[in-house]
Amino acid sequence: MTVTLSATLAANEEIDRRRRAGEQVLHLAFGEAGLPVHPALRERLVAASGRNGYGPVAGATDLRSAAAGYWTRRGLPTDPELVVCGPGSKSLLYGLLLAIGGDIVLPMPSWVSYAAQADLIGAHPILVPAPAGEGGVPDPDLVTSSVLHARAQGRTVSSLLVTLPDNPTGRLATPETVGRLVRVARELDLIIISDEIYRDLLHDPDLPYASPAELAPERTVITTGLSKSLALGGWRIGVARLPDGAYELRRSLLAVASEIWSAPAAPVQEAATYAFTDPPELLGRIAQSRRLHGAVARAVHERFAEIGASAPAPQGGFYLYPDLGHLRLGGSADVARTLLDEHGIGVLPGQAFGDDPAAARVRVAVSLLYGETTAQRLAALHSPDPLRLPWIAASLDHLSTGLKGLSAVRRTAPRERRPALVPTACHG
Amino acid sequence: MTVTLSATLAANEEIDRRRRAGEQVLHLAFGEAGLPVHPALRERLVAASGRNGYGPVAGATDLRSAAAGYWTRRGLPTDPELVVCGPGSKSLLYGLLLAIGGDIVLPMPSWVSYAAQADLIGAHPILVPAPAGEGGVPDPDLVTSSVLHARAQGRTVSSLLVTLPDNPTGRLATPETVGRLVRVARELDLIIISDEIYRDLLHDPDLPYASPAELAPERTVITTGLSKSLALGGWRIGVARLPDGAYELRRSLLAVASEIWSAPAAPVQEAATYAFTDPPELLGRIAQSRRLHGAVARAVHERFAEIGASAPAPQGGFYLYPDLGHLRLGGSADVARTLLDEHGIGVLPGQAFGDDPAAARVRVAVSLLYGETTAQRLAALHSPDPLRLPWIAASLDHLSTGLKGLSAVRRTAPRERRPALVPTACHG
Repeated sequence: MTVTLSATLAANEEIDRRRRAGEQVLHLAFGEAGLPVHPALRERLVAASGRNGYGPVAGATDLRSAAAGYWTRRGLPTDPELVVCGPGSKSLLYGLLLAIGGDIVLPMPSWVSYAAQADLIGAHPILVPAPAGEGGVPDPDLVTSSVLHARAQGRTVSSLLVTLPDNPTGRLATPETVGRLVRVARELDLIIISDEIYRDLLHDPDLPYASPAELAPERTVITTGLSKSLALGGWRIGVARLPDGAYELRRSLLAVASEIWSAPAAPVQEAATYAFTDPPELLGRIAQSRRLHGAVARAVHERFAEIGASAPAPQGGFYLYPDLGHLRLGGSADVARTLLDEHGIGVLPGQAFGDDPAAARVRVAVSLLYGETTAQRLAALHSPDPLRLPWIAASLDHLSTGLKGLSAVRRTAPRERRPALVPTACHG
Repeated sequence: MTVTLSATLAANEEIDRRRRAGEQVLHLAFGEAGLPVHPALRERLVAASGRNGYGPVAGATDLRSAAAGYWTRRGLPTDPELVVCGPGSKSLLYGLLLAIGGDIVLPMPSWVSYAAQADLIGAHPILVPAPAGEGGVPDPDLVTSSVLHARAQGRTVSSLLVTLPDNPTGRLATPETVGRLVRVARELDLIIISDEIYRDLLHDPDLPYASPAELAPERTVITTGLSKSLALGGWRIGVARLPDGAYELRRSLLAVASEIWSAPAAPVQEAATYAFTDPPELLGRIAQSRRLHGAVARAVHERFAEIGASAPAPQGGFYLYPDLGHLRLGGSADVARTLLDEHGIGVLPGQAFGDDPAAARVRVAVSLLYGETTAQRLAALHSPDPLRLPWIAASLDHLSTGLKGLSAVRRTAPRERRPALVPTACHG
């Protein structure tokens, strides 16, 4: 078992430290939605402030019914008995790994916590690159050989994870790729864990979306939560939708949940119940958020494109994943460190996401650009042209200047290629 | 790794099922405080309803400072940097097991989740009986041989756990026993995890209380929370106080926390910050709770004594642990099942707490007798003589009648001793 501080955590601590010390640091390293709580959710929390019982480990009946309705309205009829709630989808993902057991196939790159959680339970993450131009899915053509290889070595491989749309790449796998992956999962008898926490934040809601649960309801677990779409990260609420008939898995997951976290905070459960009914005011808020995330992500994407970085256009969430390899500044940790030390731009190195350390890809989160105060963030949310708001424009200018400085260094004084270093900013 | 539904969870599901079906079941099986939230805590939650950021994994600075103050006022000067908060002390205990690694010495009997958590991480709980008349501590005279035996078999034994005062026995280990245990822990180089979640619910606050952290600050972790003293179980908040200078353990614990639960719910953290400052109104509420728990626990203890059951008098929390062996009804699972099936009394069998299945000890939790409604529970809290409140008196009568029926069966028709069965009420 490995217990090391996550790269995200350490990098964010480092950025916060520098900011407190008065440095101008553009915070592009943290996957927080950066928006205020909708007043309707606050009202529900307030109304539930007298709720203090432990309640069922699976979550309150109302909450499970509401979550079942949420999925049913998205084309996935759902049995509330197969919904399990937790204090964040992160907890549920950990519980699922423990309940399912065995090794797990992950896309490369993928969110830092998947591999870290596998390490914690003593499993081995099997990293399989995403198909070119996609993200969040292991390439179906490579999964079979990786799994058969691991199994030939005596390992038990039980599951495969996808993130739709993806963190870190901001891309959504095509229905065609998802279809191929589902066929492979079926052939290999793998459970599919589909992390769909960014689903409602697809920038173009008309983009074709295929959940593996539509194609393989017998083997797909969906996890989601309200941390991203409704900016409730700090409230800690997530829900899982188990495969059809998976009552045994439900019992195992509840056994784990009851020994580790019991249940999400009761007042939060009541607010989440309301949110999962998709009331118009919250759907409106999510639509505004989606537009803001998309507009700023595209603007940031343009800044990277201007210096010649290659990055597929972001499609969902608030991330992009540019490749700065053309600057020949070293691996992702070198690039992240240079950006932070020399240009006051905090990003995460791709290697934190399991990517090849020698590649110069970094993950850029744009959601902390919307403002420092609630008033600024609400203004960004409601603005027809958020890029013109002075604080967002200033951040984009900081980014442009920094990136131009980065590429100018390269043009004027090409650096010796150094071995990839793990910067203290990421693994203090 | 074993993943089975906890006995507590399954037993409580069974009792709830019977109650929904209209059966009269006296619910003595669940460790919930059974009291309402104090209005001052609701106000703090409401005031914090706009807090939605993830915040630090260790918990907000204010909360850690408040918790440090809480311990400092109890004779344990505390560095806020060595305080780590989590969504319940249960989560923190799990995180500590994972961060510390190795096997753990547990008192026998002890709270169900300790051994279950050890199972989840693939560690072996080493159960050591408590000294006669005490509870929550492994007998210091037996710890050394158990640990040396395990080590001789190649196992790594890293820690030892105590519960002060104890669930399930309701007893507080004496300062003398704690002192001996600390010496043994030092000789064997064991970390001591001291679960002090019932500390503020000692029925007699003048009873001498020794935390191992006073005697061995270099190796003691204390965990506590607000689930019991302030009835906030459903809000999920706990805090850990790490040993002096244990910055490495802190990093490991934060690494685990960041991958499994992130942090407690942000609005709850703000309410907990207030609670840990020990404001007079909350100290008053805790004093009332303590009196109520003590009065009802003593009354229940008398009912068991009346039928000749032996049980040390309860000293803290809301539990007692009678031994019904004189009735020769079988092991603890048999007794629990008979009480439920034939007398509508739901308790937990001692074997769920790691006790000898052949012994007829059961855990009785009295806190769900205070009422079904907030009004009843507040009346119980404020009553100078809660035992005379009609609903509490009726429950005590139900208990008396059931226990007399149980012992009458024994007197009129002694039963064949059956092998101890695990009832479906406990492992459905």
